[in-house]
Amino acid sequence: MRIDEMTSKEFAKALQSDPIVFLPFGATEAHGAHLPLGTDSFQPEALCAELAEEVGGLVAPLVPYGQHSSTRNMPGTIDIQAETLKALVKDILDSLHRNGVRKVVLISGHAGSIHLAAIKGAAEETVRSHDLQLMVLTDYDIAYRFPMPVNPDYPDGHGGMLETSRILALRPELVKARRPRGKGPEQRYMTTRDPERCYPQQMVGDATKATAELGMQANQFIKSKLVTLIKKNFGE
Amino acid sequence: MRIDEMTSKEFAKALQSDPIVFLPFGATEAHGAHLPLGTDSFQPEALCAELAEEVGGLVAPLVPYGQHSSTRNMPGTIDIQAETLKALVKDILDSLHRNGVRKVVLISGHAGSIHLAAIKGAAEETVRSHDLQLMVLTDYDIAYRFPMPVNPDYPDGHGGMLETSRILALRPELVKARRPRGKGPEQRYMTTRDPERCYPQQMVGDATKATAELGMQANQFIKSKLVTLIKKNFGE
Amino acid sequence: MRIDEMTSKEFAKALQSDPIVFLPFGATEAHGAHLPLGTDSFQPEALCAELAEEVGGLVAPLVPYGQHSSTRNMPGTIDIQAETLKALVKDILDSLHRNGVRKVVLISGHAGSIHLAAIKGAAEETVRSHDLQLMVLTDYDIAYRFPMPVNPDYPDGHGGMLETSRILALRPELVKARRPRGKGPEQRYMTTRDPERCYPQQMVGDATKATAELGMQANQFIKSKLVTLIKKNFGE
Amino acid sequence: MRIDEMTSKEFAKALQSDPIVFLPFGATEAHGAHLPLGTDSFQPEALCAELAEEVGGLVAPLVPYGQHSSTRNMPGTIDIQAETLKALVKDILDSLHRNGVRKVVLISGHAGSIHLAAIKGAAEETVRSHDLQLMVLTDYDIAYRFPMPVNPDYPDGHGGMLETSRILALRPELVKARRPRGKGPEQRYMTTRDPERCYPQQMVGDATKATAELGMQANQFIKSKLVTLIKKNFGE
Amino acid sequence: MRIDEMTSKEFAKALQSDPIVFLPFGATEAHGAHLPLGTDSFQPEALCAELAEEVGGLVAPLVPYGQHSSTRNMPGTIDIQAETLKALVKDILDSLHRNGVRKVVLISGHAGSIHLAAIKGAAEETVRSHDLQLMVLTDYDIAYRFPMPVNPDYPDGHGGMLETSRILALRPELVKARRPRGKGPEQRYMTTRDPERCYPQQMVGDATKATAELGMQANQFIKSKLVTLIKKNFGE
Amino acid sequence: MRIDEMTSKEFAKALQSDPIVFLPFGATEAHGAHLPLGTDSFQPEALCAELAEEVGGLVAPLVPYGQHSSTRNMPGTIDIQAETLKALVKDILDSLHRNGVRKVVLISGHAGSIHLAAIKGAAEETVRSHDLQLMVLTDYDIAYRFPMPVNPDYPDGHGGMLETSRILALRPELVKARRPRGKGPEQRYMTTRDPERCYPQQMVGDATKATAELGMQANQFIKSKLVTLIKKNFGE
Repeated sequence: MRIDEMTSKEFAKALQSDPIVFLPFGATEAHGAHLPLGTDSFQPEALCAELAEEVGGLVAPLVPYGQHSSTRNMPGTIDIQAETLKALVKDILDSLHRNGVRKVVLISGHAGSIHLAAIKGAAEETVRSHDLQLMVLTDYDIAYRFPMPVNPDYPDGHGGMLETSRILALRPELVKARRPRGKGPEQRYMTTRDPERCYPQQMVGDATKATAELGMQANQFIKSKLVTLIKKNFGE
Repeated sequence: MRIDEMTSKEFAKALQSDPIVFLPFGATEAHGAHLPLGTDSFQPEALCAELAEEVGGLVAPLVPYGQHSSTRNMPGTIDIQAETLKALVKDILDSLHRNGVRKVVLISGHAGSIHLAAIKGAAEETVRSHDLQLMVLTDYDIAYRFPMPVNPDYPDGHGGMLETSRILALRPELVKARRPRGKGPEQRYMTTRDPERCYPQQMVGDATKATAELGMQANQFIKSKLVTLIKKNFGE
Repeated sequence: MRIDEMTSKEFAKALQSDPIVFLPFGATEAHGAHLPLGTDSFQPEALCAELAEEVGGLVAPLVPYGQHSSTRNMPGTIDIQAETLKALVKDILDSLHRNGVRKVVLISGHAGSIHLAAIKGAAEETVRSHDLQLMVLTDYDIAYRFPMPVNPDYPDGHGGMLETSRILALRPELVKARRPRGKGPEQRYMTTRDPERCYPQQMVGDATKATAELGMQANQFIKSKLVTLIKKNFGE
Repeated sequence: MRIDEMTSKEFAKALQSDPIVFLPFGATEAHGAHLPLGTDSFQPEALCAELAEEVGGLVAPLVPYGQHSSTRNMPGTIDIQAETLKALVKDILDSLHRNGVRKVVLISGHAGSIHLAAIKGAAEETVRSHDLQLMVLTDYDIAYRFPMPVNPDYPDGHGGMLETSRILALRPELVKARRPRGKGPEQRYMTTRDPERCYPQQMVGDATKATAELGMQANQFIKSKLVTLIKKNFGE
Repeated sequence: MRIDEMTSKEFAKALQSDPIVFLPFGATEAHGAHLPLGTDSFQPEALCAELAEEVGGLVAPLVPYGQHSSTRNMPGTIDIQAETLKALVKDILDSLHRNGVRKVVLISGHAGSIHLAAIKGAAEETVRSHDLQLMVLTDYDIAYRFPMPVNPDYPDGHGGMLETSRILALRPELVKARRPRGKGPEQRYMTTRDPERCYPQQMVGDATKATAELGMQANQFIKSKLVTLIKKNFGE
Repeated sequence: MRIDEMTSKEFAKALQSDPIVFLPFGATEAHGAHLPLGTDSFQPEALCAELAEEVGGLVAPLVPYGQHSSTRNMPGTIDIQAETLKALVKDILDSLHRNGVRKVVLISGHAGSIHLAAIKGAAEETVRSHDLQLMVLTDYDIAYRFPMPVNPDYPDGHGGMLETSRILALRPELVKARRPRGKGPEQRYMTTRDPERCYPQQMVGDATKATAELGMQANQFIKSKLVTLIKKNFGE
């Protein structure tokens, strides 16, 4: 199921049933004082493993670096350029296609707009010349539809109640007991050299309300919605 | 006020008061059977002129081409690559900065996510090395907050009730009397070679409900919100 | 006739007669104390409109930014890199071709050698893979053949007698009454960081001799020569 | 120790002692019928973890994709372009430097010459403008010095006795019981479209002679040599 | 005098007097049935050697490949992209500058407009960040001012009377006895896939009128004009 | 035999017998106090001429600039970026292929790993889309197999006994009588900004032991081995 654990022969054989390949995109990014830098990697990696099991697909190795805007200057964020990410996605898709893969689901744990545009742009350009069915999304496209009681003073976002809950469900030992509350920037639409000033907590939302229970429900919700969507999209 | 109508000397003199330069981004894109291909150009060009008048700024020449995903293969869409757009924005900002400009508002009439990411990405990279205050948005960031009775069967979007109304207010002679209704794609998150198949009407929303009156109110709403926001952001 | 004023359907229908598309390239560039920064935009835009009317073609939106060498550091010049311009031209031509356009006339108001090489280079690379008939020129290729009494002490060039006359014919309200005389650089073939020092007047020629009458004759001369040339080149 | 498991605050604190960051480069590449596709990932990832423990450093997330020449067309190889890899390394180093990291050891499990040149090239260009001490190598630079009885008919190489032994030591459950023998190409220095034809076994060497015991000794040898070298190079 | 024949020490010593470095640009290009493919290399290489002797400069190794438009598809033309040439020139100038060189004369034997724009563009971008005095030209900028009786039916150009004469003066053994006459294209300003069709003789002008005598005079004329110009430009 | 000395017609005719084209890659690089900067150019240029004579091939013009790592900052080294070199090789190969060439031997006098990877990378990418048989090597791949008594205290390398001998055989007038001994760096695998500090002699080996006699034998050895290899590889 994990491509890196299969031999060349096993991989070739697995491709005969035209499986979906799941390609998880993570990040190394500041997520507040309570969450690990790999938060955006742990979520899609776990999700892809579950989805692959559910629909009989394969999981490609995680891309653990992404593009970051507002958190770029915070300690621990490792930022790659949008062009680099896009080139990487195009190369991987090209290789998968050469191998005979025809269905890929690209799931990004990080939801920055420039980051996602790089992945989507790579996908769009690839399908113009390659016979591939591609589904591109961030698990947060689904996650934010999860019905959840939110603290109205702290609209939920990066590193907030939902994300903290999901990591509590996946890697509880990496989440700090003391959790912050944070808000987004006051100046809308401004692009500045020091965007981190607008996020003194490195996060948005009320993480004190996060629980592993909620995280498990959210993860289950996302998986379930995605299995349905994937089956519909790929006609399986 | 329009930079292309000023002489070099007049421009140099105008810069002494550290004015905001408005840089409008348009597009040449299919917008249904009822709207002109320049729909996304006419809106930000008119808006920038009004904003510049309101806050005493200058208007740079319109960039009339953009990046397009879902409408790329529709007749009349002229699509440029995200990389090209990004390079163009970086070059223009670099030149404006060399001229002494320190405040720029970049407003895009087209709201595609890859298109906007190109403009934002250019802005982010520029401020890292240039002393510039940049505000980047699409007028639809504001427009979609305009309170408006929407046909619940046709959620409003590209070429829909709001956009048609705005063009009716700006360039009524270019809007066809017969107007369509349209819906978005059924398959979510799929990237395909022929996305136009998902938009048989080239538009999303109920354009039959559009009126010039509504368009004028929307345009007024956007202008007013933006004047407030700009004054707040630039401390003026 | 203007592509941005047509709907998608009208554009598709117009293409059935295999029309020539005129693609005007302007600039935002210092042109002396007497001429507007958009001088190189106003000329090809007006010319393209007339040519399209004459031969039954379409006019694509103007590209209002170009590459500049000697005027790069003068107030009001907005310079884009040759690579950016070339990429833009390739993207636009690729899109026009995908739309079914097969004949394009690219006319640049700015005649800098690196600027023109970018446009020509884009054209050359495009025709290698696309079925397109392309004609590429600056209107000054034709304009400088216009018979005109020139002040022998001031050989005519950028912002000089001919160009000032043409703008007087097109946009008289934008031309200042007081007009300069200027000369080119003394040091030949040198590439320097501050080329503007060689052009203290920002222009070359004797603009005091310019008249709207002369400009109208020149514009008529250019249009007439080009109509003949276009008909010959495209066999119409 | 693993950066992705630390919070932003923990990472910032760890940097105060100016630690070495270990950056492992893996690959997804055909390694014969007996070894997993992630062979080149498992080795440097384990090695970096041990080295970091030994010298008190941190481990950055693994880059699991690389550039491949001779195995590019074999099932399971995912090949990225040298330019993509180089850009990725430059971006990561730039980010690490911005974070305050000053010492990085880049260890690649894959030893292809173009692949390594991409990593080295990125390192060289980065140190020209960044204050960084960089050590770049493949563990096979050291591994091939490990004294080992080799089958003279099968000179050892990719997927051979040494590599198979090392994976047997690290991930025995992923190594197949039946192991091949293979030889390199007969035509020297030729660059062809189908290099896989020269490697019918996907590997070079005699893997039947591999043992976990030998692999543990080799891994221990490499670690020990590198600890000495790292201490000498970084003066620790 | 030739940099490739000096040792590192000799070169370092020669730089102490701040000499001009001459950088010749040649080409490998079809020049009619009578002239060798290296025609554009032999001319600037000989000229640079003479100029360096005259003004006490150094000669860098010849760049023997260039960008070609109209002759691109003719047998023997080796065409490199404008971007490649530009990158090459930038790299060489950057290296010369790092070595301490401050004056460079770049002379191209090939005079194509895109080719020259690539060299000039590289020069312009380099001087923005490097302390360099650069003079960029093709020897044909000077050569075409050489007073010479021309066959009015065959305006002189590529591979014509002047160029043939110059090669007769430099490399007579490489010039064929039978020489052609040729004309340029009838369709002006068209960019086509097969420009060679417009030049059935691969040359423009009347080569039957060429003589070694004339070539020597032309070469002497060019050298003499350039020595004066160089002394003026570099204040020597 | 030299392409630059042939006419277009002669070249076209020569291609009818499907000859091998030899493409020599030189360098302009510090080689110690005793050897000229063109050392890496003289060797492959002479070798290619001999090989072409031996097997009936053609010789393309020498590329006299390459990529340099350890000698980059030494006086006289002219360094071009790996990307530039790669682009150049791709362009030349593409042009040769368009001319009808089907067999190319690329021989580099400079053996730096990033330099060679650029040439090999260009070759690999070209054969994917072009019908070409390519052989890529540095003559030092063969030269270092030449049996030669080496000073054990000074392992031979760049500018050492072997290379000095070869230049003594080819261009004795350019080799200084006084010759150095030198060693490589002590710190292994480090990438630094000032690698020249590790090579105070600019060379590695004992050049005092070099003789023209030895050089002639080495050159003969290389030629002979390569003729055999080329005949085998190209089936001639």
